[in-house]
Amino acid sequence: MRVVIIGGGGMIGQKLARALGQRGEIGGSKISHLLLADIASPAAVEAKFPVAAKRLDITDRAAVGAVLGNGADVIYHLAAIVSGQAEADFDLGMSINLIGSINVFEAARDLGTCPIVVFTSSIAVYGGEVPAMIEDWTALNPQTSYGAQKAAAEMLLTDYSRKGFIDGRGLRLPTISIRPGKPNKAASGFMSSIFREPLQGREAVCPVGPDYEHWYLSPRCCVENLIHAAELPTIVLGQNRCFALPGRTYSIGEMVEAMRQVAGDEPVKLIRWEPDPAIQDIVLGWRAYFNPSKALALDFVRDDSFEDNIRFFLEDDIER
Amino acid sequence: MRVVIIGGGGMIGQKLARALGQRGEIGGSKISHLLLADIASPAAVEAKFPVAAKRLDITDRAAVGAVLGNGADVIYHLAAIVSGQAEADFDLGMSINLIGSINVFEAARDLGTCPIVVFTSSIAVYGGEVPAMIEDWTALNPQTSYGAQKAAAEMLLTDYSRKGFIDGRGLRLPTISIRPGKPNKAASGFMSSIFREPLQGREAVCPVGPDYEHWYLSPRCCVENLIHAAELPTIVLGQNRCFALPGRTYSIGEMVEAMRQVAGDEPVKLIRWEPDPAIQDIVLGWRAYFNPSKALALDFVRDDSFEDNIRFFLEDDIER
Repeated sequence: MRVVIIGGGGMIGQKLARALGQRGEIGGSKISHLLLADIASPAAVEAKFPVAAKRLDITDRAAVGAVLGNGADVIYHLAAIVSGQAEADFDLGMSINLIGSINVFEAARDLGTCPIVVFTSSIAVYGGEVPAMIEDWTALNPQTSYGAQKAAAEMLLTDYSRKGFIDGRGLRLPTISIRPGKPNKAASGFMSSIFREPLQGREAVCPVGPDYEHWYLSPRCCVENLIHAAELPTIVLGQNRCFALPGRTYSIGEMVEAMRQVAGDEPVKLIRWEPDPAIQDIVLGWRAYFNPSKALALDFVRDDSFEDNIRFFLEDDIER
Repeated sequence: MRVVIIGGGGMIGQKLARALGQRGEIGGSKISHLLLADIASPAAVEAKFPVAAKRLDITDRAAVGAVLGNGADVIYHLAAIVSGQAEADFDLGMSINLIGSINVFEAARDLGTCPIVVFTSSIAVYGGEVPAMIEDWTALNPQTSYGAQKAAAEMLLTDYSRKGFIDGRGLRLPTISIRPGKPNKAASGFMSSIFREPLQGREAVCPVGPDYEHWYLSPRCCVENLIHAAELPTIVLGQNRCFALPGRTYSIGEMVEAMRQVAGDEPVKLIRWEPDPAIQDIVLGWRAYFNPSKALALDFVRDDSFEDNIRFFLEDDIER
């Protein structure tokens, strides 16, 4: 089984690659080869099988075709311009998040083998004129360009799948916390940095108040879900290939308290509370309450509490 | 006020052009010029102002820019490949219905004047895993490529509007009945032809049974709604620029009975009942029950009964 991760240089792509490298298989089929592609050549990972890395600009249709040229049984399409950046540079967001996704779907279709395509969408597709509780049948009414581009790509993923061109599985990721590594340009960046930085002895700024509620998943559970998505038989996926992953709703205050429970008082003192209207403009349009019935019925997983997210960070990601 | 109708050669485009020609204004502003653009040069219409007609291939971004080159205050984007054709030729549907729409939105954005863009979407965006009653907040889960392409374009219309690039208004049209003229390749074609042809003394084939229920609007009310859409102040449109127009749910049997009431027994005898699985595959995925609260609150209109639809056809469209 040949696996390609487009966006394989990103945080989730790298964790996914390492997890696949350890497992050596997806759904009982041995992985024979893994290709990591990203805008900058991804770091290699240890694995039980050969791993290659390639630079890829997904706005270049021919280049995407070349990356899939040796065939692919499972394609992870994780590549995206994040919310803050897509809001600041509309054209870049359109070209990467929408046209780039079409390029991936088209190149996968061109293989003629109906490969599995696991696509990471986002809860940023939600917002606007819908009830507070997000059900599986709630309309997508994104209030960011990032969300709109993901929502448009979702419609195509389901249709390409219905047509039998690809076997798509679109997962609307909760906000991932705690993200390791450097801050990115996502408006949601603080939802990780106010834990990641203090847990490593550094100050961090929280641009919203402690009552701000949102919907979260740890990187560890996210990666498990990405692998699970590729393992599900097509028949169980139904008529909508895109759905919200499970997560948990926490207020920032609850999350800070979870950090205190796991790591003590010191990290908590390193959070500086400085409201930022530009970030609030974006994140206050996002949703906090979800009923991810479909994903739960399909056995996708979530953390038990935010203390899990803190512990997983300390186990998997802290820089020592 | 300069008005451009892209898709101005189609049935609705021509009716809209004639209606604007008679009114001479939109929302109290005099129309100074009307341009009709379509893949074949549209027929001229009588009007109180100059009317031009141009050939336009909307898959050609530069050509769309040229058509809007003299400026436009209101742009109607009605151009599309219909459902049956988009299902048969996926790539053509993508290029016209999605990429073509992006070309229109981009060319309108390039004007730098945030023009009003009235976009005709369709109830074909609904289907799949949603409750039977379609509310304004029901997820779009199209089960045709036509619907998926319209749904993707909707996401962009709302986002281009939120960004202030255009002032979009996306109307999900019910199935329009009774369509005059020749049959087109829409899977919904029979929903007009089984009335239009018999009312003109010709046989027609009904590929579904009399119990088949669907959601309808007359061409006359549709055109009124298209004009109304351009007249609404931006502020009332809210966070989702796309919504279902009002319509009425009828079974085919009720519609045939309405024809009998208005036009007597003879036309009814000209319907041949011949089930067609290929057409049923498409239309059985469409929805019949809608609660178009937003459109009704915004004073969009609908027919009182299908007898209206029959009478409007006899008044406006019958070939004598």
